[in-house]
Amino acid sequence: MVKITFPDGSVKEFAAGTTAYQIAESISPRLAADSLAASVNGATVDLSRPIDEDASVKFYKWEDEEGKHAFWHTSSHLLAEALEALYPGIKFGIGPAIENGFYYDVDSPVAITESDLPKIEAKMVELARQKEPLVRREVPKAEALKEFTEKGDPYKVELIEALEDGTISFYTNGNFTDLCRGPHIPNTGAIKAIKLLSVAGAYWRGDEKRQMLTRIYGISFPKKSMLDEYLALMEEAKKRDHRKLGKELELFAFSQRVGAGLPLWLPKGAALRDRLEQFLRSVQKEYGYQQVITPHIGNKELYVTSGHYAKYGKDSFQPIHTPVEGEEYLLKPMNCPHHCEIYKVKPRSYKDLPIRLAEFGTVYRYEQTGELHGLTRVRGFTQDDAHMFVRPDQLLEEFEKVIDIILYIFRTLKFDNYTAQISLRDKTNREKYIGTDENWEKAEQAIIRATEEKGLKTTIEYGEAAFYGPKLDFMVRDAIGRKWQLGTIQVDYNLPERFDLTYKGADDKLHRPIMIHRAPFGSMERFVAVLLEHTGGKFPLWLSPDQVVVLPISEKFNDYARKVADYLNRYDVRAQVDDRNEKIGRKIRDNELKRIPYLVIVGEKEEAEGKVSIRVQGEGDKGQMTLEEYKDYMVGLVKAEMEANKIEK
Amino acid sequence: MVKITFPDGSVKEFAAGTTAYQIAESISPRLAADSLAASVNGATVDLSRPIDEDASVKFYKWEDEEGKHAFWHTSSHLLAEALEALYPGIKFGIGPAIENGFYYDVDSPVAITESDLPKIEAKMVELARQKEPLVRREVPKAEALKEFTEKGDPYKVELIEALEDGTISFYTNGNFTDLCRGPHIPNTGAIKAIKLLSVAGAYWRGDEKRQMLTRIYGISFPKKSMLDEYLALMEEAKKRDHRKLGKELELFAFSQRVGAGLPLWLPKGAALRDRLEQFLRSVQKEYGYQQVITPHIGNKELYVTSGHYAKYGKDSFQPIHTPVEGEEYLLKPMNCPHHCEIYKVKPRSYKDLPIRLAEFGTVYRYEQTGELHGLTRVRGFTQDDAHMFVRPDQLLEEFEKVIDIILYIFRTLKFDNYTAQISLRDKTNREKYIGTDENWEKAEQAIIRATEEKGLKTTIEYGEAAFYGPKLDFMVRDAIGRKWQLGTIQVDYNLPERFDLTYKGADDKLHRPIMIHRAPFGSMERFVAVLLEHTGGKFPLWLSPDQVVVLPISEKFNDYARKVADYLNRYDVRAQVDDRNEKIGRKIRDNELKRIPYLVIVGEKEEAEGKVSIRVQGEGDKGQMTLEEYKDYMVGLVKAEMEANKIEK
Repeated sequence: MVKITFPDGSVKEFAAGTTAYQIAESISPRLAADSLAASVNGATVDLSRPIDEDASVKFYKWEDEEGKHAFWHTSSHLLAEALEALYPGIKFGIGPAIENGFYYDVDSPVAITESDLPKIEAKMVELARQKEPLVRREVPKAEALKEFTEKGDPYKVELIEALEDGTISFYTNGNFTDLCRGPHIPNTGAIKAIKLLSVAGAYWRGDEKRQMLTRIYGISFPKKSMLDEYLALMEEAKKRDHRKLGKELELFAFSQRVGAGLPLWLPKGAALRDRLEQFLRSVQKEYGYQQVITPHIGNKELYVTSGHYAKYGKDSFQPIHTPVEGEEYLLKPMNCPHHCEIYKVKPRSYKDLPIRLAEFGTVYRYEQTGELHGLTRVRGFTQDDAHMFVRPDQLLEEFEKVIDIILYIFRTLKFDNYTAQISLRDKTNREKYIGTDENWEKAEQAIIRATEEKGLKTTIEYGEAAFYGPKLDFMVRDAIGRKWQLGTIQVDYNLPERFDLTYKGADDKLHRPIMIHRAPFGSMERFVAVLLEHTGGKFPLWLSPDQVVVLPISEKFNDYARKVADYLNRYDVRAQVDDRNEKIGRKIRDNELKRIPYLVIVGEKEEAEGKVSIRVQGEGDKGQMTLEEYKDYMVGLVKAEMEANKIEK
Repeated sequence: MVKITFPDGSVKEFAAGTTAYQIAESISPRLAADSLAASVNGATVDLSRPIDEDASVKFYKWEDEEGKHAFWHTSSHLLAEALEALYPGIKFGIGPAIENGFYYDVDSPVAITESDLPKIEAKMVELARQKEPLVRREVPKAEALKEFTEKGDPYKVELIEALEDGTISFYTNGNFTDLCRGPHIPNTGAIKAIKLLSVAGAYWRGDEKRQMLTRIYGISFPKKSMLDEYLALMEEAKKRDHRKLGKELELFAFSQRVGAGLPLWLPKGAALRDRLEQFLRSVQKEYGYQQVITPHIGNKELYVTSGHYAKYGKDSFQPIHTPVEGEEYLLKPMNCPHHCEIYKVKPRSYKDLPIRLAEFGTVYRYEQTGELHGLTRVRGFTQDDAHMFVRPDQLLEEFEKVIDIILYIFRTLKFDNYTAQISLRDKTNREKYIGTDENWEKAEQAIIRATEEKGLKTTIEYGEAAFYGPKLDFMVRDAIGRKWQLGTIQVDYNLPERFDLTYKGADDKLHRPIMIHRAPFGSMERFVAVLLEHTGGKFPLWLSPDQVVVLPISEKFNDYARKVADYLNRYDVRAQVDDRNEKIGRKIRDNELKRIPYLVIVGEKEEAEGKVSIRVQGEGDKGQMTLEEYKDYMVGLVKAEMEANKIEK
């Protein structure tokens, strides 16, 4: 008999060799049917694996990452099975589950293109209906090599050669056998809905000097309705793709000649970004932040001191040499070392703290070309960065203030759905953290208390803290339900140590301040991307690049239209005139497509009476106002947006 | 007989072999006495040089750079003569005239320190009183080598070895003979006032692997009163040194660890710079400029295309390599290539022009450590840059608008004394310029007409244009009479060509736009430095980092003081409280030293009546106002400053 401990702490005995599936079934047939994989003593395994010793057991369903992972991993084997049936002699690279779905890299005797995907999909569905079990088998290395050599699959042979004897396992579904660690779901019958998404090229082992394989991407679900929902979401996401919107709204562009991953902010995008910056600046000013400006490079020694060179040095942009004097500089990967040097410019007293240094600091980090993606994955980005230097007794209050700012910013930008993750030390391995136990305890408690007092929805993850301090990460959900990681607050005991930062206490002795790093947006680039995908380009009024476009009914009223626009601009209502020689209906359509929040139409009647006719994006005609009334209305709307979410301090 | 042509075009005949001095004397004894050197057929020579052929002749006086140069060059020989008399066996490196004065590098058998300077000065005065003539002698190389080898001066021997036979001349004053090309003033008697300024180390030939010599700096004048004036100016300049003020006012700092020449803008400095930027932005917005933001690096190919790599590549920060993919990036030395790429983002029509792209763009250029100087010579600086893309028919109007902006900015910042230099083509060598003759002619005429219409005081320099277009440079004179080069406007036919920029004309054909580069400040760093030296830290009110400091008479009134400061800050009057536990007199003194424009004193009476007592920097007590009156007064002052110099468009 073995003792099985469940997540709720209850313990039950089973015969040795009982499988996780059988255990689930003994609890309820529903649980067995919904489970996709199990955790046995912390390892994720097949439900069909026999349990031979006392163990804590947990079941993973679709809702769990581990459950989805097993489901999609099995789907990739199903894909391979279908491919082998359709393309005899096809050879296989690797076929993992990924964040959304799965892929398989193959070397096919005939080219596979997107037009072949429906046929392959149909074969997968046919095979899945046979509910083939996934059968695990442990194989000695010599036998494994023999089997795949005979099959004539050089990629698998190469993979096996790198493995140690005694650690090799095969999984078989139907006629297809793969080298695989698992885990898998019990059989392919659970895979009810399949969509193969795309075909791409991929070098074997990511090495451009080796064979180019064909990568087939797909996704699968236990229910048809889930696939439909996913595809609808993808369709909606495509419409909101910030790269597409950024181009349409003329916000930013990339140039091969300047370099991949280095955005050029066009006038409307730069103005939008500037408004976001000014908004943050004004909030931060209220909270006693001081803006500083530091260079975009620093002597290599600076980053050796900070430890960033050890972390980023090898994989990032390489050092910049000087023509004489043999100096080496680095593009800055972080602003914090520069801010530490500002802290050190003069002696600090306990009365000076907290010192809050803020900078919209552009940093550069190398990413491989294939990893780049619009504004969300770039090689140069501007952090909305700030560093607080605080006394230990100020940590809680300062942390709470930072949460206040971040939540105010989220709400003002209409991200109403957010959660936060508290990352703490690994309780079982405290040696790997720097700083005293007492300080850690205080900092962790401060974060937990601060989030409680602010009523934040949080999860706690042990072992996810950085080695230099605990942190709080904010996740927002966008309008179509996708999660994005945005702001972060980080406690740091390390840099004050490395830079020997001190302040003179009331006791006349020198003490170490604690640093807090924080960035509500993360970066201006990433945030503008998320905002575009969240709003579909329909920004809050105060942020809109153009708030109003004035449409003269015919050329006769172009002058009045310009008068109206000039008047509005004088009161900081951003207005343009569409004086193209087009029909009014066409002008309305074009400007609505450009997501202009307010269209103002002017003709004979409006000019005679000093009025404007108003159309609201998505709402249509809103009647007439005098020009002054309309100006007041717009100024009032923006003011209301800015003040709606202010927090009492 | 030889024919001598004078600058006014008149011609006179003299016996062959007549000297320039004799010619001057024949015109007037005064002219002969005031002349220090002469130009004979374009070459600057000694007044004592016999003229053997027809020549155009010009006389250089103290007011001319060439005159001063000869005067100071002779002073360095006088210094050497004095040193040889005082330190027998001393060896000499080089001894040139410099921008302000002269120096001599020497290898002395006994160390020379600053305390020795009065003694050397006295010796120089003594020798100058003997009115020793400077006697030129042309010497064959072998003889020159022999003479200095016998004297035992290895430095001069090394210099002579590098010269061609037939080009070597010696100059002798008193007992001292030097290898020298000249020219010199006729005799040392004109040197009436001498000041040796400092002693420094300098490597022989600037090579750190060679002998360290002693460099003695000095300055000299034809009148004692001129030296007194110069020393007073130096004293005043020292007080206004922007490096000293920047530290005292906590505007900026440098850190060895970040790197030499890379300024850290501290909170007060960053706020000052931000106000300057916002001011420029608002002016530029009125003139239809559009802000953009571009990265601080670019692919090397971008600068190969622009030609900047050929110009800056070797001597500047070296390329940044990527860890994989073998790409090369450069820290951007200029913003223009990035702006050209923005122009190219979409097709442009003649109706879209002018397009005006502006950016506060930080660029990086390597300077040797010895060349760095505070904020005026740095390795990273932020240009207040903009590029106009215009049609040829728009060039004049756009150029005039740029002049308007620059003059408005100068006046608002209290630089009332400015001139401009127009740099045109060399008329005799037109091949070295790119662009058509017709375009050049138009552009040059446009600049000349624009400056005339704006009533600018200008000088025209032929041959000073860049190879790609003519330009206009602005020079300002600061409060103590020093000249600084600030803004520049530059016409460019080259980059539109290199980047293949086009617009579709009314004729439906593609045309090339012309680019205008312009930067009113030059850079934020340089401008803040000049502004500090100009104002001595007493900024115009709207720019002052702190406009008001509130001084409570005693701690009892700290709360009221804070209420006053909060109230003022709410109306954007920048106010701080000095709540140190110090006597009120001390607080007044300290804050006046910090150049705070307004001190507001509050005690029992003020609190009871809701009033403030006002002290103005440099003017003293100004009586009382209610808090609201005072707020209105300050807001009004700032508004008046901003509007005083606006130009009618």
